Amino acid sequence: MTKPLRLGIAGLGTVGVGVVKIIRRQAEMLEMRTGRPVVITVVSARDASKDRGVALTGYAWETDPVALAKRDDVDVFVELMGGHDGAAKDATEAALASGKDVVTANKALLAIHGQALAEQAEAAGQVIRFEAAVAGGIPVIKSLTEGLAGNQVTRIMGVMNGTCNYILTRMEATGEGYNTLFDECGRLGYLEADPNLDVGGIDAGHKLALLSSIAFGSKPAFDDVVLQGIQRIAIDDIRHAADMGYRIKLLGVAQRTARGLEQRMTPCLVPANSPLGQLEGGTNMVVIEGDAVEQVVLRGPGAGEGPTASAVLGDICDLARGLRIATFGQPATTLQEIPAAQTGLPAPYYLRLALQDKPGALAKVATALGDAGISIDRMRQYSHSEPTAPVLIVTHKCTSAALDIAIEALDQASVVDGAPVALRIEEL
Amino acid sequence: MTKPLRLGIAGLGTVGVGVVKIIRRQAEMLEMRTGRPVVITVVSARDASKDRGVALTGYAWETDPVALAKRDDVDVFVELMGGHDGAAKDATEAALASGKDVVTANKALLAIHGQALAEQAEAAGQVIRFEAAVAGGIPVIKSLTEGLAGNQVTRIMGVMNGTCNYILTRMEATGEGYNTLFDECGRLGYLEADPNLDVGGIDAGHKLALLSSIAFGSKPAFDDVVLQGIQRIAIDDIRHAADMGYRIKLLGVAQRTARGLEQRMTPCLVPANSPLGQLEGGTNMVVIEGDAVEQVVLRGPGAGEGPTASAVLGDICDLARGLRIATFGQPATTLQEIPAAQTGLPAPYYLRLALQDKPGALAKVATALGDAGISIDRMRQYSHSEPTAPVLIVTHKCTSAALDIAIEALDQASVVDGAPVALRIEEL
Repeated sequence: MTKPLRLGIAGLGTVGVGVVKIIRRQAEMLEMRTGRPVVITVVSARDASKDRGVALTGYAWETDPVALAKRDDVDVFVELMGGHDGAAKDATEAALASGKDVVTANKALLAIHGQALAEQAEAAGQVIRFEAAVAGGIPVIKSLTEGLAGNQVTRIMGVMNGTCNYILTRMEATGEGYNTLFDECGRLGYLEADPNLDVGGIDAGHKLALLSSIAFGSKPAFDDVVLQGIQRIAIDDIRHAADMGYRIKLLGVAQRTARGLEQRMTPCLVPANSPLGQLEGGTNMVVIEGDAVEQVVLRGPGAGEGPTASAVLGDICDLARGLRIATFGQPATTLQEIPAAQTGLPAPYYLRLALQDKPGALAKVATALGDAGISIDRMRQYSHSEPTAPVLIVTHKCTSAALDIAIEALDQASVVDGAPVALRIEEL
Repeated sequence: MTKPLRLGIAGLGTVGVGVVKIIRRQAEMLEMRTGRPVVITVVSARDASKDRGVALTGYAWETDPVALAKRDDVDVFVELMGGHDGAAKDATEAALASGKDVVTANKALLAIHGQALAEQAEAAGQVIRFEAAVAGGIPVIKSLTEGLAGNQVTRIMGVMNGTCNYILTRMEATGEGYNTLFDECGRLGYLEADPNLDVGGIDAGHKLALLSSIAFGSKPAFDDVVLQGIQRIAIDDIRHAADMGYRIKLLGVAQRTARGLEQRMTPCLVPANSPLGQLEGGTNMVVIEGDAVEQVVLRGPGAGEGPTASAVLGDICDLARGLRIATFGQPATTLQEIPAAQTGLPAPYYLRLALQDKPGALAKVATALGDAGISIDRMRQYSHSEPTAPVLIVTHKCTSAALDIAIEALDQASVVDGAPVALRIEEL
């Protein structure tokens, strides 16, 4: 195996540049570890003239990633462009069709088209690897697919969007509101081109769908992920959660129950002193629970040049070493369609309402909850100057179905302005 | 690849039984994931008549593990006996010599004979896998060898002996002394047959030597690990550390510096609110720092039937899937001999002395430290009834070499009874 592994890299943004740097800096180490030279033969990006802070001499240049993907001097197509359609998808399909393996950091592409791409790859005898698509530098895809392959996975949990976690932890640390910190993230370059991918939970939802597929042997089903973003989390929510010993995290949970496959990516209250509660800034954490291993917790940087490039290199080294595995850990044609299920496990919920300031309003809230079978653990109404009063409620354990009924009733009772903020409290 | 992978399992203790249970319970899942049936053909243990709580019907029985290792109906020799010499070593060598791959949970065997065994395996085209040898259910060998293969590792840290961590956390929680908790561990079956393997830090030192080899491309060098056990940690040390915001952990640290390869497994003070400080009971944690990934932290159960069997199954699934890799991540013949180095990084140290109750004794202590260039951050002398007074000292940052000089001087000054307890304070 002294034949070099030849890479064609499409996309020279932060991650692409990180990958080029490692391959230039660590050529000797990579060859020692994989048994063969790992070389870049061709790169592609929109603008060939831009200074990216790394030498690109010695590489061919293609403006069209599809053309790059088909070249005879490429063994592995490294897709670092992003986007679930367009060039990324076309080039990935072209690479597989022309006998290349694919390494990608593209969670959207795989969460939406992963099933079709995996089937195409496996029919062609090619491999798709995507460690960098989930949780940045944490080797979570490998741990789940290979290291924990002897486990029937019972639950996956994770905080997998660094931008959301940065906003939420900064809100608590600074007392600034969501909008201020959202703007700060924009200035710092922490937001995707479409910020809703971050703050709407979509990006993290993509990641959860990929982990679910591996864990439960199911077709990636991003459309089944119950999504809720962090846009409506107010500084009052953060403060009230902290008063009660909780922190708010955009938390992913996936588990298979008798009802089906539950996947949700929603802001939740978690104990402030739990490992998930203590997660700061852009750090990610994934918790994997299995019937044999009990619980494994993986923590690391969720984004950034070095960490994401580290994950891409892990996949590249695997291919250089001849380690080849089905995209989602078992043949794509054997992945099942498991019906989506809402969570059936009762939990306490945190509610924030804008209560209209008129006699009997609070009674109507209590009635709506009581009629749905929900009892109140704690309640607090703040004094106020606006025409509506902020009311914070923590319920005793109830099902999400009961909560939906109560919120529907509140809506019809016309005593609450706008939709309540309802957050599940996960005791973990 | 529909040919079954045939396992011969030597050793039916806790881990062996766990492996048998998973293979019986999850046969369908394992075949789905690996593409072939994973079957046990033969087992071996000392006592064939013992009830182990799992059916062993359908398996051949060998009383001699060496005979098992040589059988024609075995593809993978699964060594779960333990011990660095004798039957485990003989059978492993026999398995490799007769064309079998090896999966083992035996840290002692590999830490001491790993270089020779890896060379034998690689010359024969066979593979040795040992995920279960380090940190129980945590897929740390795989993460380090494969997932983080694109990194030049800068440091490894870890708490990797559950028994020591159990004793230390229970000392703080209950206020009981070391001896009481040591006896409790014996009753609970938490101790190795030779307890010094646990409380002397040897078992954890074996694990650190294996991680170092992979991380730094060096021959496993257990003899170079600076070892210190937890036997001399007193309840006063635990309390005083807690007062200052620290916890005492048996902490492994490995790093390569200009001076050489530093490997130490010693009790240290770590911040109580750090991830390592918060580790409770038998849970293990490994921190891997690399030039690209920054820092990845892996946490999980360090021992027990299910978690350790999970790690063994991860290796078995890899072999069933055809994933084959050099024992220490690169050819054994390319591993370097790196000279051992003491840590050169200064750190504050915690000292506990039994000071003789005579005039000028404390002055002599202060002089010995001052002469070695060590300044005192905090000191406390307790009132006492014994002829010696307990004195607790926290130094400002100093080198371990300076500390050795001071301790030598204290010894010669004849004002201190016995050797001082000296613990490094790691700010992490």
